[in-house]
Amino acid sequence: MPTLSIRKIRPNVETLVLAADLTGTVVFAVEGALSAMRGGLDLLGVMVISFVAALGGGVIRDLLIGDSPPNAIRDWRYPALTFVTGLLTFVFHSAAQQFPVALITVLDAAGLALFAVAGVEKALLFGIRPFIAMLMGTITGVGGGVIRDVLMARVPLVLHADIYATAAFAGAFSVVVARRAGLPPGVAALAGGAVCFILRVLAVTYGWHLPKVSLSALA
Amino acid sequence: MPTLSIRKIRPNVETLVLAADLTGTVVFAVEGALSAMRGGLDLLGVMVISFVAALGGGVIRDLLIGDSPPNAIRDWRYPALTFVTGLLTFVFHSAAQQFPVALITVLDAAGLALFAVAGVEKALLFGIRPFIAMLMGTITGVGGGVIRDVLMARVPLVLHADIYATAAFAGAFSVVVARRAGLPPGVAALAGGAVCFILRVLAVTYGWHLPKVSLSALA
Amino acid sequence: MPTLSIRKIRPNVETLVLAADLTGTVVFAVEGALSAMRGGLDLLGVMVISFVAALGGGVIRDLLIGDSPPNAIRDWRYPALTFVTGLLTFVFHSAAQQFPVALITVLDAAGLALFAVAGVEKALLFGIRPFIAMLMGTITGVGGGVIRDVLMARVPLVLHADIYATAAFAGAFSVVVARRAGLPPGVAALAGGAVCFILRVLAVTYGWHLPKVSLSALA
Repeated sequence: MPTLSIRKIRPNVETLVLAADLTGTVVFAVEGALSAMRGGLDLLGVMVISFVAALGGGVIRDLLIGDSPPNAIRDWRYPALTFVTGLLTFVFHSAAQQFPVALITVLDAAGLALFAVAGVEKALLFGIRPFIAMLMGTITGVGGGVIRDVLMARVPLVLHADIYATAAFAGAFSVVVARRAGLPPGVAALAGGAVCFILRVLAVTYGWHLPKVSLSALA
Repeated sequence: MPTLSIRKIRPNVETLVLAADLTGTVVFAVEGALSAMRGGLDLLGVMVISFVAALGGGVIRDLLIGDSPPNAIRDWRYPALTFVTGLLTFVFHSAAQQFPVALITVLDAAGLALFAVAGVEKALLFGIRPFIAMLMGTITGVGGGVIRDVLMARVPLVLHADIYATAAFAGAFSVVVARRAGLPPGVAALAGGAVCFILRVLAVTYGWHLPKVSLSALA
Repeated sequence: MPTLSIRKIRPNVETLVLAADLTGTVVFAVEGALSAMRGGLDLLGVMVISFVAALGGGVIRDLLIGDSPPNAIRDWRYPALTFVTGLLTFVFHSAAQQFPVALITVLDAAGLALFAVAGVEKALLFGIRPFIAMLMGTITGVGGGVIRDVLMARVPLVLHADIYATAAFAGAFSVVVARRAGLPPGVAALAGGAVCFILRVLAVTYGWHLPKVSLSALA
């Protein structure tokens, strides 16, 4: 009875995706909250940064691909989750700072992978061409961090350090290539997520960076 | 003749709301212009900051709730009003700086209250769920100031000081609660506006702030 | 045979407009890339800044006038062109820095003129009122530079220096006035482009600036 077994499996896959989505959202929100507290923001600022760090990338993607209003505005549970996460991180900041760095890195890489894959898939679903869909996946993954840094009046980290947006792009790229190669969407998504996750973890582990050129500011 | 008396009253209410809307827009534009001059911007910069400070919150709200093009783009009178206000503030900057601080605070609080209430009502009208509609009201009130600060390369004031966004949210929250309690929309709007206005004026008067946690930037 | 001769001419006009559009895009992307390298961004940051500097103005315009998804998201060739330009500027940065300043100024002024005219025309086509359409033309010309500066955590150059946005606005204004005066759209576009280009080149040549008022930051 394959139909039955698929029916049995599908809820588990959906549960897994939902769990990953919520994990990514919470991890990004906690990191945003800690970053906001380090920047001297007050409780409201911390909650706002939690919200934009976790959901800002998806909002930009939805505005750009024309899914209006953006999902984070339609489904009140996501904003509510990020505000509560920001509040709890504020209250229990001593505990939040004790999270092992390695654990945060791994969870953040998992969140990035999920956001990038979900972003490219949603863009493809909306009829966006593959190359642009890869950009939309990347923006879904890194856009929240960019808005966070802009609101904190700093140059966004992804523009000058780390293999981060690059990992998101590599994951989104892999999804498109795997689909073109005829792999089923689920397998393509898994492959793309794995590429993003592994590249990110390797980059942190071995301290990989993209090249830079120093030009004199006066040149 | 109740119909007649309603007809007689309605224009007055509409006139009042329009007057409040224009007052809020002008006050936000004047404050934006003064802030831009203090930041060393030129005449064009002053006019741009007047525009975004007064209308930026409504533009973000309209983009997010899917009212496209945003109202400030459809109705040329609002942008024109902010540009003229910016120009006049630039020319008569000595006079503009003499406005009593207390008067500015009261007018600004009135503008914030009106924007927050109008924002939550418009979002509800567009079928946005109540909790998100409250956020849209808050964004309508504070979004202009956030863009102003981002364009001036500073951390937005509302994220690290003052009871300001909090007052806007409290007002928007009150509108929703009052409607749920069965109050007519006009009464709910008045109640929400009063909550926002009074909370803001009390916070300035007594120097209330939200809590902060100082984390080491290196933590 | 006027119909035939028009048919013969039109492709040339279209080719000219396309060539001008591509030139403007490439020039803005090269300038963005050099600016990003001076700001210490890495290769990805350089490519992102090339993209936003060249296409950001059009994306804002399209979001505001309700053309969703924005053109730069629908047509993959524009983003691809800016990324490749960013990459090549990064690799051949020594050569890119040798471009004569006068040539860059002239090409940049041409790009600004084209973007401003194209922006006002697209807005009019979408039924936007003339005054707002002029603003949309201006935003098309300068919006990319504004996002570039915001991402690099600086006050946007157009807000405090130079006759730049003013030239874009003058060009967009001229297009509307020329159309109102009954000139054919092609002539109006040429006139508007010429006004913007000449005003910009004159302003750079003679060091024109808009007036500023210095207010004490404490006032």
